Amino acid sequence: MITYKTLAKALNMTEIRARRLLKSKSLRKTSYREFEYLIFKRDIGPYPEGTAVIFHNDYEPKVVPGYPQISRILVLRVAVPQHFRDQVIVEEKLNGYNVRVVSYAGKLLALTRGGYICPYTTHRIERIFRSKGIEDLEGYVVFGETVGLENPYTRYRYPECEDFCFYVIDVMKDGTYLPIDSKKKFCEDNNLECVRELAKVNKNDVDKIWEIVKVMESEKREGIVLKDPYNRVPPLKYTTSITNIGDIAEGMKYMFDEGRTYLFPRILREVFKSFEEEPNEELLKERIKMLGEAILLEPLNAVKKVNIGEAIAEEFVLKFYSENVIDEFLSYMQKQGILLNIKNMERENDEIIIWFMKPKRTNLELRNIMSSGLSPLD
Amino acid sequence: MITYKTLAKALNMTEIRARRLLKSKSLRKTSYREFEYLIFKRDIGPYPEGTAVIFHNDYEPKVVPGYPQISRILVLRVAVPQHFRDQVIVEEKLNGYNVRVVSYAGKLLALTRGGYICPYTTHRIERIFRSKGIEDLEGYVVFGETVGLENPYTRYRYPECEDFCFYVIDVMKDGTYLPIDSKKKFCEDNNLECVRELAKVNKNDVDKIWEIVKVMESEKREGIVLKDPYNRVPPLKYTTSITNIGDIAEGMKYMFDEGRTYLFPRILREVFKSFEEEPNEELLKERIKMLGEAILLEPLNAVKKVNIGEAIAEEFVLKFYSENVIDEFLSYMQKQGILLNIKNMERENDEIIIWFMKPKRTNLELRNIMSSGLSPLD
Repeated sequence: MITYKTLAKALNMTEIRARRLLKSKSLRKTSYREFEYLIFKRDIGPYPEGTAVIFHNDYEPKVVPGYPQISRILVLRVAVPQHFRDQVIVEEKLNGYNVRVVSYAGKLLALTRGGYICPYTTHRIERIFRSKGIEDLEGYVVFGETVGLENPYTRYRYPECEDFCFYVIDVMKDGTYLPIDSKKKFCEDNNLECVRELAKVNKNDVDKIWEIVKVMESEKREGIVLKDPYNRVPPLKYTTSITNIGDIAEGMKYMFDEGRTYLFPRILREVFKSFEEEPNEELLKERIKMLGEAILLEPLNAVKKVNIGEAIAEEFVLKFYSENVIDEFLSYMQKQGILLNIKNMERENDEIIIWFMKPKRTNLELRNIMSSGLSPLD
Repeated sequence: MITYKTLAKALNMTEIRARRLLKSKSLRKTSYREFEYLIFKRDIGPYPEGTAVIFHNDYEPKVVPGYPQISRILVLRVAVPQHFRDQVIVEEKLNGYNVRVVSYAGKLLALTRGGYICPYTTHRIERIFRSKGIEDLEGYVVFGETVGLENPYTRYRYPECEDFCFYVIDVMKDGTYLPIDSKKKFCEDNNLECVRELAKVNKNDVDKIWEIVKVMESEKREGIVLKDPYNRVPPLKYTTSITNIGDIAEGMKYMFDEGRTYLFPRILREVFKSFEEEPNEELLKERIKMLGEAILLEPLNAVKKVNIGEAIAEEFVLKFYSENVIDEFLSYMQKQGILLNIKNMERENDEIIIWFMKPKRTNLELRNIMSSGLSPLD
């Protein structure tokens, strides 16, 4: 049972404050199996948005801090020398979704960026961790990126991972992030895969960072995260054009869903990337074409689909090793207001493979436009 | 003096309701010379947003109804046959700003779409109307589009008007819009210019409408407004690609101002235009290029300007025939939170020509990015 007394103790705050918090809209209460938990919908005191406090009848509550938003660089040659102290570790930024793994009450739990315990992610991560002999993470919080195609959130095809993989980004112990070398040691000791360290450079060697960005670009990878080796300053991120424009294309398949919100921030990124990179005329033309196509052709294809009676839905395939988890996952999505349709299901040995369709608002909007011929906007 | 009693009488509503309205945020109170007036910030009863109620000590208050938002067509072949009764008048849609002209207390007053009496527009319109011998509009409200380059709002170069012109769109008498033929007669009688009537077509003759759109396209004109000859159904509008994409280009010069809000609705227009028009491969490629350039190159140029220390500002030239009006105009803009800078001023006979610079939020945002290298967004 969640009470303001236990919450106050867990967060080390006054009971008055805890009581007020519990009644506020800043916390959302939900549950997973035998766990009840609270999710922070905004930064509260030292805890970032996405922080979760998990309760279990037989254990002290567990606080899992949210992973802070990483600031984005628009001009490398300005930001890097100003922001960092001396050395900068360049890590690869992977295109997936952020997951925190903790152990609590004898279980491994995987939380999404928002703070939800995702039954599917937990299920898959648990298998990976168990296969590496990890049963208990003790006091560690393992922050990582889940990549591959078999997930309900962010799918991007990596040559090294087509299904479901987890790469450690950061490790926290007692509320403090480990220095990068200790994080790498933690991964080695536990046989976990770490995101790639691409280089260690002096903060003034922006040319070297640009070289790396160009390699990432040519390999169609998302981008980089720059870190201080000892976390003395917060990390910063930077993404490739292939990602900036690719995100727009992906989003514009569902223009009234992701498309609408994706556009502006990614255009801003690409504008400043072009400013600093100074691509030659041919490359600039190519980027302009890619951008124009992302913005015009992707939604045009969606309209054509709707016109011939097809539905616009996000499709993905998940792999389960337990029937229970399927139900848990479906009701978890439902609690978040998402009603998934099952398109197909196959069994193969101990695997259950399910093809899902996630309905999109875009489908309804385009359908309405096609039937009235009128715009819902100006 | 504005009181709830006079307001109740003017709007033909109960005094209780008028009193509540006066206290609400739905009305904004402001003044122009000897006039005090109220502006409707939203639709209230039968009065559209932008309606103004003007008060003068010696006269009964005057209600100037707002000009309703015209719905936008995305698919002509669907919307036109469904929406209209039989015949459809195709008028040209001009790229300018909507103005209502009324006479009240012996004066001609020009109101913008939002309901404000614009001292500059009033000044210029008054000269045009006087030159045509119009001193009093009696009970008529003349709705028109102001086009040309000499205005503080929307500048677009038309071969037939480079300075300041006013074209009548609609005329209202006693709260009712005149049928189109009567409107044309009103314009002839008063020697006022009407927006061009391009055709009168049967509602099923969408091919003819498409022909007109293509002519407008080739002449780089904004688009069309479709009207029922007797206003039995509301008008609808449709714009050319040159305008959809041109607006984006114009807006993206100031990406944190207009750019941000312009993007999505105009992309939507262009997507459906491509869907219905089915441009050949070459034309589609050309549009994709135009769109990509609008989105990437315009803001890139702005960043380059900021980088060499230039300011991003909207520049325009206005022509005055009275010193007083300059002050009135400046304080009018100031009341709306816009501090204009005067870049240059010239006198020529009875004309005072002033070059203005309107500061943009984009200037500050780009400057901040250039100095931190970081994104204000994700």
